[in-house]
Amino acid sequence: MVVTIIGTGLIGGSMAIAFREKGMAKKLIGVEADPAHRQKALEIGLVDEMMSVEEAIPLSDLVVLAIPVNDTLELLPHLLDHVHRQVVIDVGSTKHPVCEVVAHHPRRSRFVATHPMWGTEYSGPEAAVKGAFENKAVVICSKEDSDDDAVEIAESVYRLLGMHLLYMDAAAHDLHAAYVSHISHITSFALANTVLEKEREEDAIFEMASAGFESTVRLAKSNPAMWVPIFMQNRENVLDVLNEHISQLRKFKSCLEKENYQYLQELIEHANGIRRILK
Amino acid sequence: MVVTIIGTGLIGGSMAIAFREKGMAKKLIGVEADPAHRQKALEIGLVDEMMSVEEAIPLSDLVVLAIPVNDTLELLPHLLDHVHRQVVIDVGSTKHPVCEVVAHHPRRSRFVATHPMWGTEYSGPEAAVKGAFENKAVVICSKEDSDDDAVEIAESVYRLLGMHLLYMDAAAHDLHAAYVSHISHITSFALANTVLEKEREEDAIFEMASAGFESTVRLAKSNPAMWVPIFMQNRENVLDVLNEHISQLRKFKSCLEKENYQYLQELIEHANGIRRILK
Repeated sequence: MVVTIIGTGLIGGSMAIAFREKGMAKKLIGVEADPAHRQKALEIGLVDEMMSVEEAIPLSDLVVLAIPVNDTLELLPHLLDHVHRQVVIDVGSTKHPVCEVVAHHPRRSRFVATHPMWGTEYSGPEAAVKGAFENKAVVICSKEDSDDDAVEIAESVYRLLGMHLLYMDAAAHDLHAAYVSHISHITSFALANTVLEKEREEDAIFEMASAGFESTVRLAKSNPAMWVPIFMQNRENVLDVLNEHISQLRKFKSCLEKENYQYLQELIEHANGIRRILK
Repeated sequence: MVVTIIGTGLIGGSMAIAFREKGMAKKLIGVEADPAHRQKALEIGLVDEMMSVEEAIPLSDLVVLAIPVNDTLELLPHLLDHVHRQVVIDVGSTKHPVCEVVAHHPRRSRFVATHPMWGTEYSGPEAAVKGAFENKAVVICSKEDSDDDAVEIAESVYRLLGMHLLYMDAAAHDLHAAYVSHISHITSFALANTVLEKEREEDAIFEMASAGFESTVRLAKSNPAMWVPIFMQNRENVLDVLNEHISQLRKFKSCLEKENYQYLQELIEHANGIRRILK
């Protein structure tokens, strides 16, 4: 099939690599707003050629939207205006707003809302990697609003990438995503700012930083152009989780202030319960 | 040389593996308070035999103390009572209290306070791994309080493990450690409790949890028996950093509440500055 990838960055680029590797795409067309990314994506061979959205859609069987979630809300209705038989999937980290924005679009059923649960703290075409999605989960949202054949194509594409499929409605996805992804980014950004604010001896951090520190802070390298719109769109869920997180941190603070080490022990033992969930 | 390792868990066990691999120890003696760990450490060959502290010291050239930092404070003075020519190093995550507790000990100069900056969220003899310390930093504290030959032996041991050596006084170490290690553990414990508290659908977390989540939460599996004493001993520094961290998180909260996305963008851009420090 002919596949158009709109946004040839970390996610779109990694999908392009996987599509080519699996022999899935006869032709890969890129749509890319950033001139430097456009050139780089062609240079490293992520896509065969670059076109405008209007040129690309009529030639395509599958269109993958892999741009920041605010841009998706703007572009998707316009995209569907041009769609007939094509299948459009998005890969954004929020799902309720994108489903809302096309809820009454006459071509809504050609769209499948998806979220492959993979990413890194890097962005742009050069951040794309091989084997990115293998053995990861992908969430397919509110599939009853999509045509059966469109869902089947989305499913077969993700199975080909080696992903396991989860199904939930868009609102449930956004709630869970706040817990398993969005809050991790906020804590990491805040931790980076804590260290940058108070620890003036950057050399000491640089030299002493261990794997544990790197692990909790690496997400703080993530691109604001991607993350501000995610937090905007998932604002209420993220605020709920963030409030809870601050109150959990206050318990640790209170233990230390009051030297209540018995309770500190209990808090840590409770946290160890995450072993049930993370292998 | 003959080396005694007191505490054959994650750190002591990994050192035993490295000493053996590098051909550094003619004989490896273990001292282990936990009967199950004692048996396991012998079974997997971490040490050649197990003894009591009193038996082991006279036979040893080097004694490595790799036990929780509260136990170190109790054991080290007693240990030094038995020491003549031997060199004793500890590997704990706090350095000021251990230096204080032996400050006036007549054998203080046979002790070298060190902190190899490596660890994982696992503990016990079976958590020990090969190649653990390679290319990591080790901090050697307040070396002017140790005999030159003792410092030289500590340095040569760590160089043999492939570590690069940093020097600072014990109080400075504890401040920096609060930033590059201790706060990461608190945020991770608190994040685990946040998710376990509010997200009742553990299956959803389990299935959706991505690498980003795992990365920020994995430290929450860490052993309270090790971490409570670290937080006790580094209480003031950890409280300072924790207060700053909560106030940084409140900035994110305020941005979301007020929908001030310009400032949210700035906070994230500032956090991206961590790229200067983490490669």
